[in-house]
Amino acid sequence: MGYGDMSNSGNPTVHTPNLDRMAAEGMKFTQWYSGFHVCSPSRAAMLTGRLPIRSGCAGESWTGGVFTDDAVGGMPQNETTFAEVLKEQGYASLAVGKWHLGQQPQYLPTAQGFDEYFGIPFSVDMGHSAWMTPGRPTVLPLLHNTTVVEQPVDLNTLDERYAAKAVQFILQQAKAQNLFVLYFACNHVHIPDYAGPEYCNKTKRGRFGDALTEMDASIGKVMNGLKEAGVDDNTIMFFTSDNGPWIIQKLQGGSAGPLFEGKQTTWEGGIREPAIVRWPGRIPAGSVSMEVAATYDIFATAVALAGAKLPADRAIDGKDLSGVLLHGKESPHECLFHYKGVPSTGLPPAADDPQPGLWAVRCGPYKAHFASQCSIMHQLGDFRCSSELAGEDEGIGGEPNGLSKPIIHNPPLLYNVEHDLGEQYPIAPESGEYQTAMAQILKAKKEHEATLAPVPNQIALGGSDDVKVCCDPQSQQRHPGYLNCTCNPENFDDVFVCTPVQAPTLLQRRDAIAV
Amino acid sequence: MGYGDMSNSGNPTVHTPNLDRMAAEGMKFTQWYSGFHVCSPSRAAMLTGRLPIRSGCAGESWTGGVFTDDAVGGMPQNETTFAEVLKEQGYASLAVGKWHLGQQPQYLPTAQGFDEYFGIPFSVDMGHSAWMTPGRPTVLPLLHNTTVVEQPVDLNTLDERYAAKAVQFILQQAKAQNLFVLYFACNHVHIPDYAGPEYCNKTKRGRFGDALTEMDASIGKVMNGLKEAGVDDNTIMFFTSDNGPWIIQKLQGGSAGPLFEGKQTTWEGGIREPAIVRWPGRIPAGSVSMEVAATYDIFATAVALAGAKLPADRAIDGKDLSGVLLHGKESPHECLFHYKGVPSTGLPPAADDPQPGLWAVRCGPYKAHFASQCSIMHQLGDFRCSSELAGEDEGIGGEPNGLSKPIIHNPPLLYNVEHDLGEQYPIAPESGEYQTAMAQILKAKKEHEATLAPVPNQIALGGSDDVKVCCDPQSQQRHPGYLNCTCNPENFDDVFVCTPVQAPTLLQRRDAIAV
Repeated sequence: MGYGDMSNSGNPTVHTPNLDRMAAEGMKFTQWYSGFHVCSPSRAAMLTGRLPIRSGCAGESWTGGVFTDDAVGGMPQNETTFAEVLKEQGYASLAVGKWHLGQQPQYLPTAQGFDEYFGIPFSVDMGHSAWMTPGRPTVLPLLHNTTVVEQPVDLNTLDERYAAKAVQFILQQAKAQNLFVLYFACNHVHIPDYAGPEYCNKTKRGRFGDALTEMDASIGKVMNGLKEAGVDDNTIMFFTSDNGPWIIQKLQGGSAGPLFEGKQTTWEGGIREPAIVRWPGRIPAGSVSMEVAATYDIFATAVALAGAKLPADRAIDGKDLSGVLLHGKESPHECLFHYKGVPSTGLPPAADDPQPGLWAVRCGPYKAHFASQCSIMHQLGDFRCSSELAGEDEGIGGEPNGLSKPIIHNPPLLYNVEHDLGEQYPIAPESGEYQTAMAQILKAKKEHEATLAPVPNQIALGGSDDVKVCCDPQSQQRHPGYLNCTCNPENFDDVFVCTPVQAPTLLQRRDAIAV
Repeated sequence: MGYGDMSNSGNPTVHTPNLDRMAAEGMKFTQWYSGFHVCSPSRAAMLTGRLPIRSGCAGESWTGGVFTDDAVGGMPQNETTFAEVLKEQGYASLAVGKWHLGQQPQYLPTAQGFDEYFGIPFSVDMGHSAWMTPGRPTVLPLLHNTTVVEQPVDLNTLDERYAAKAVQFILQQAKAQNLFVLYFACNHVHIPDYAGPEYCNKTKRGRFGDALTEMDASIGKVMNGLKEAGVDDNTIMFFTSDNGPWIIQKLQGGSAGPLFEGKQTTWEGGIREPAIVRWPGRIPAGSVSMEVAATYDIFATAVALAGAKLPADRAIDGKDLSGVLLHGKESPHECLFHYKGVPSTGLPPAADDPQPGLWAVRCGPYKAHFASQCSIMHQLGDFRCSSELAGEDEGIGGEPNGLSKPIIHNPPLLYNVEHDLGEQYPIAPESGEYQTAMAQILKAKKEHEATLAPVPNQIALGGSDDVKVCCDPQSQQRHPGYLNCTCNPENFDDVFVCTPVQAPTLLQRRDAIAV
């Protein structure tokens, strides 16, 4: 989901009434960043308050990298999630939905501080379902804690079940007068852009719009749950996305609005996210904040509001946003650091090969690109992008990942991203403005880099069939003709899949107008 | 001002609290089109309900064309404006602000149905002021009715005076229990992006942001005036822009959000506009309409709501939007027709020269481009744009107009603009979807063209020093050393001009955060 995918952020053909309501009742952020430009590292950052390079979850290679459906690694157990900190404060916790930080039991939410988990341990396109049959032969599982409860999952009822689980948890905890934390990680919006019959062909925007609307409805149900439980005024609720729109998916990706580029890149469109924070009675209703904030601030803010302390034995990148949210203060951030993976180990790069690493730094309104890469937009011949494909990397299902070759910018490209929304007009390197801003950025970069310590890269550990999620390794004996690990063949066969409808013809439009 | 220039349509670094309030109290449109991609023709369309090609105001040449500060022509007097229709119904009327449909007395608002006029008869960059000294030696005038009251105008106090005039009119008419119509045509936002001391350097977005904020404040004052006058529930208020962002002005132009391109082009960014309609108690508060509508519908809607009849002797392109606004009905439009000027007369085009004319047609969600042109974006080497400059045309001040050479699309480029927000993924001409949609578009185009009659082109009449607005042709005797037609030399000398401030340094930011 991109910066421009809410009605209240400019999406012209999808209604998001529940996110709009959340914004009307809370604070909308316009300069809110994810911790990374793809899913797994971004979520690691949110849960731990640390840039993913610190937890070994920053991926490697130009693609950025995420945990695969057969990942050997996962977010290390010695990382401290907000669920773990809040547990110490007596909070009950539930994680619902997409996890994507390792599918093995020792990496699942129940091993990372959550009392309970209900969801798909990775992306919805990483396994077979009625909606998608990708190349990698995994059947898409639904887990309760560490147990498979459905494989493949029935996607048409998934969001309904996610919302019901979340609302039930809220009502129970409120009734028991427990403190609680809910991590509600929608699988939407992501290819294959599934949507049940209630949402199929209900928007002008096609399948992406249907999926987005179904997600918006789930968020509305959770908000209603808080009201019904009577804890609305005592609950802070954050909404954001893990990365920008997946541009190489064309019409099945979202929109970054005025921002350039999307997922898998360190351009604004890849890392600046829709974000709303709501706390009725405490955060001014209908407010818009232009302060710089980041998804990993959720960790530090939650810890502070719960009266706990930040872990003292490690670097924390997130900042407490209470001042911004409750007291109209300035952003606590000086600079943000945007990595494009981490350098792969052992392989010396060719001279003209930019290594993954720290590609962009923002200090104040200025953002420097030391290197950059583009999505399929390179086909448009944009001057900011190489017109050569990055090459050998392959995405899910054998599709090329659609990235152009990285470009090293020497001198670095510099933009004032508060003036220049689309990163279109680089500041001249000869100018005093450039010299001043770059001196600050280079100083901040050096200070930041001094805080880093090498850690094993978890994503680089790759995949193995031995660690895949499987309801029953002997399932083919029970259900011959199906992929192995199929325990719910009815979810391949009998499941509704939305077929796109054609736009009405002019004659049909005339009839409609005449009515 | 572009589609993306309100907080509620995704602008990340400008607050527009008054437009946001208007949207929260009314209906925001996401598929609302201007009648043209530059100012004069667009305003002619709004005032008359007719495409500018019908009134001789469609300009000629690739630049589209607007009336100059020394225009010989103007919108013909036999055109019927909504002010004229409403006058018959007993409405008092006032036009405030930018006119741009001819600066000679016979073309000014008082000759087109308005009881009174207070404003600048053309764009704010078309004459010298303390804020701008362009090449064409006209001193920027402020008129009351047809009389110059200030030359040059003091831009720092202009918006305040516009708002005061409007509010005074509202209060007076309401007190006298008169029906009334107000045309409040802000000179903002347009280079030179002026803003008085109260708004100077008050936004993160630079001069454009300051100007936009000053405009937003004026709109707030007008809304407050309606409330104060007690006519809030009995007044319908429309807000829109005349064309998309002026991209060749770079950071001094606005943002089209997710849409491609801007002013001077028939891409969505040039013609799809921010639009809000507010009528407390009648139009659902906080609603978002995705129905196709156009600025020239204001004419037809106003006429219908006032109980008047549309002129019977001419083609009217605007439709009554009451059904959409009050009863949740579908758009009354089948197709919209987007012209790029009109063919110039007398000069046969070279074989590879696309003539100005009907360049784009939208029917339902489908939009066909028969020809197109781009702004300075051509420098990005976009596949939709020629990389050659259009050439000889010159803008105000001798600057090249920054347009690329037009491209004829044969077969026409076809997009589903409800799915494909940025007109990035043309539908394959071989596909059934293309064939069906194009057949309808070509049929509609033919029907539309059959309704056209040739009219003299008013903009092509060009300019003459004899018809320029001048407070005193002998002014140089009184004020030697100033340009002729200067009656207020103090407005050149003593006027505040906002100087941009640099962003705070990292050290200053640290201090600010520490506080």
